[in-house]
Amino acid sequence: MYQITPSTRLRASPFFEATLAAGVTSFTAYNHMLMPTGYGDPEGEYWRLLKGVAQWDVAVERQVELTGRDAARLAQILCPRDLGRCQVGQGKYVALCNHAGTLINDPVLLKLDADRYWLSIADSNILFWARAIAAERGLQVTVSEPDVSPLAVQGPKAEAVVAALCGDWVRTLKYFWFRQTEIAGIPVVVIRSGWSKQGGFELFLMDGSRGVELWNIVAEAGRPWDIGPGNPNACERIESGLLSWGGDTDDATNPFEVRLARYLDLEVPDDVIGIAALRRVAAEGPRRHQLGVVLEGDAPATPLCRWAPILAGKRRAGDLTNCVWSWRLQRNIGFALIETASRPGDRVEVLRAGTRIPGRLVELPFL
Amino acid sequence: MYQITPSTRLRASPFFEATLAAGVTSFTAYNHMLMPTGYGDPEGEYWRLLKGVAQWDVAVERQVELTGRDAARLAQILCPRDLGRCQVGQGKYVALCNHAGTLINDPVLLKLDADRYWLSIADSNILFWARAIAAERGLQVTVSEPDVSPLAVQGPKAEAVVAALCGDWVRTLKYFWFRQTEIAGIPVVVIRSGWSKQGGFELFLMDGSRGVELWNIVAEAGRPWDIGPGNPNACERIESGLLSWGGDTDDATNPFEVRLARYLDLEVPDDVIGIAALRRVAAEGPRRHQLGVVLEGDAPATPLCRWAPILAGKRRAGDLTNCVWSWRLQRNIGFALIETASRPGDRVEVLRAGTRIPGRLVELPFL
Repeated sequence: MYQITPSTRLRASPFFEATLAAGVTSFTAYNHMLMPTGYGDPEGEYWRLLKGVAQWDVAVERQVELTGRDAARLAQILCPRDLGRCQVGQGKYVALCNHAGTLINDPVLLKLDADRYWLSIADSNILFWARAIAAERGLQVTVSEPDVSPLAVQGPKAEAVVAALCGDWVRTLKYFWFRQTEIAGIPVVVIRSGWSKQGGFELFLMDGSRGVELWNIVAEAGRPWDIGPGNPNACERIESGLLSWGGDTDDATNPFEVRLARYLDLEVPDDVIGIAALRRVAAEGPRRHQLGVVLEGDAPATPLCRWAPILAGKRRAGDLTNCVWSWRLQRNIGFALIETASRPGDRVEVLRAGTRIPGRLVELPFL
Repeated sequence: MYQITPSTRLRASPFFEATLAAGVTSFTAYNHMLMPTGYGDPEGEYWRLLKGVAQWDVAVERQVELTGRDAARLAQILCPRDLGRCQVGQGKYVALCNHAGTLINDPVLLKLDADRYWLSIADSNILFWARAIAAERGLQVTVSEPDVSPLAVQGPKAEAVVAALCGDWVRTLKYFWFRQTEIAGIPVVVIRSGWSKQGGFELFLMDGSRGVELWNIVAEAGRPWDIGPGNPNACERIESGLLSWGGDTDDATNPFEVRLARYLDLEVPDDVIGIAALRRVAAEGPRRHQLGVVLEGDAPATPLCRWAPILAGKRRAGDLTNCVWSWRLQRNIGFALIETASRPGDRVEVLRAGTRIPGRLVELPFL
């Protein structure tokens, strides 16, 4: 662990001062912003997410807004998934691809109105991408990054907290559906979503000057359920099989390789970016797939800062793209991006710092 | 200062293990990679750059390679600067803009061959951008990120070190000119460049498996000149007036606002991205410009993690985009991005954490 140097190139979130007050101890950088990654008690924060409720500063999950006459058209051009039946108030997880069918982001698309969409993005520059496509195709659409910063409330008790904040109507929200409302006069979009499999909501703060205020309101409302600070949890997301774009993908990864085929519609029009390439991959079959790896040994390993080769016999069959100590499995686990000839049940070896660590391939998710 | 969490989403450089051995204490994230930002002695590292020679891991300065029949055409389409007379072996600093004339990166373009270019980029995703434009315009060009990682040798004694490594021919290299060669069999491009005004070179390592080896060879060759580890130096670059894209720019900044007008050629063809918008700004004049600010007080301020408002009388006239203690000026200094009505010599106030700090606008560079 090393220090991170403050800089205006890595922007602070509207919740930044509140997370300092809550005792944040570490950050990562994501979409040119700082995101909290811990508050000093990794295992406690993990179990809080699993058993209780946590509030996360995920302002780094930026929105790319498409507005104007051609907004719906641009949204469909960018997304190889049929958006024709997407309703206002509904979100959809989409696998954005480039012209070669390579995955360039995996946002949630929110339809705010017939001519207004947000792409709630992972860690790559979709603002530039969408503007390039819009301008090159001569579309009548404005592409911008609005003043919107998500605060996630995650865990089995999240619904109780968000109902206390917003009312019981949130209990009937379906997954990825959302509604615009106010919390103590602060404009927010409430969506049932979040980067965990423990359930919960995200409150999309729509006034960056009121981040600390919203953070404190959520902390106060969550007190009866013992809410505490947290962050997208490496252990839980790996146990649950959630993808981290840029961490688990490389510059040749297509959606089929990383279990996103069910979010594709190959029948979308031919002007959708990457669709011709995706149809080819679908016909030929992908060359790699994503599996889990359970490593031998009962001492927690250090996190990876580079992919680690996976050997099947003497051959490099793929890469370990992340590695974490699983508190539930009591083993080091990670994702393999590996040739399709390698199957669940296979014995493999992972090469780290000159050492070969035996392991076994399994289906994802782990839990 | 807070910890940075290791992750495969923020890749380690080929020099990573060498910088650990050299005692790196802090990092930043840049182009989805970790970059060292200090070795525990900020003032010593500053004076080493000013008086001696330092070696920097700047592998984060990624290359976007354009190859193929239309590579030259794509390079020109991306760059609002006339590349017609750019020779093989020559580099040019360019202000990449989007269709609205907003600055999206400020790379050095290297012409490696008639049909092969590198954009040696600042901290934004030009790989996606260039691919979008190439595909949308149907150009015959491959856009990729090759295995190339710069190691900078900077400071007044840099030429002696690089001449000892490569031969006296490096002494005749003009600024931004380069040559491909080998150092102990390691393929490198040697270019006279670097993100300081103290002179020096960058060695573009072309085999990522040999980073530690190259680092150690440079350290050994530099021993007679007392070389030591360093990094792009916040104090020196601000004193010298060097731009940090994304730190000193926002989503509305055009090249005229940040002193890059002399790198533009408004007579380039109409298919160059952003040129129509840039001609309009040239005709109407920019609304903001970039000046220096010298703040009162002789206690070093903490670095900014957000832009700070600059008040001219009671009006917000602009923003302070960075702030550093200058060891040569013995004052806190920074860049203002401010309305053009504000002029060098004007008294202003900077608003930080509820406090008003008096200061004075000056021309850039400071030194």
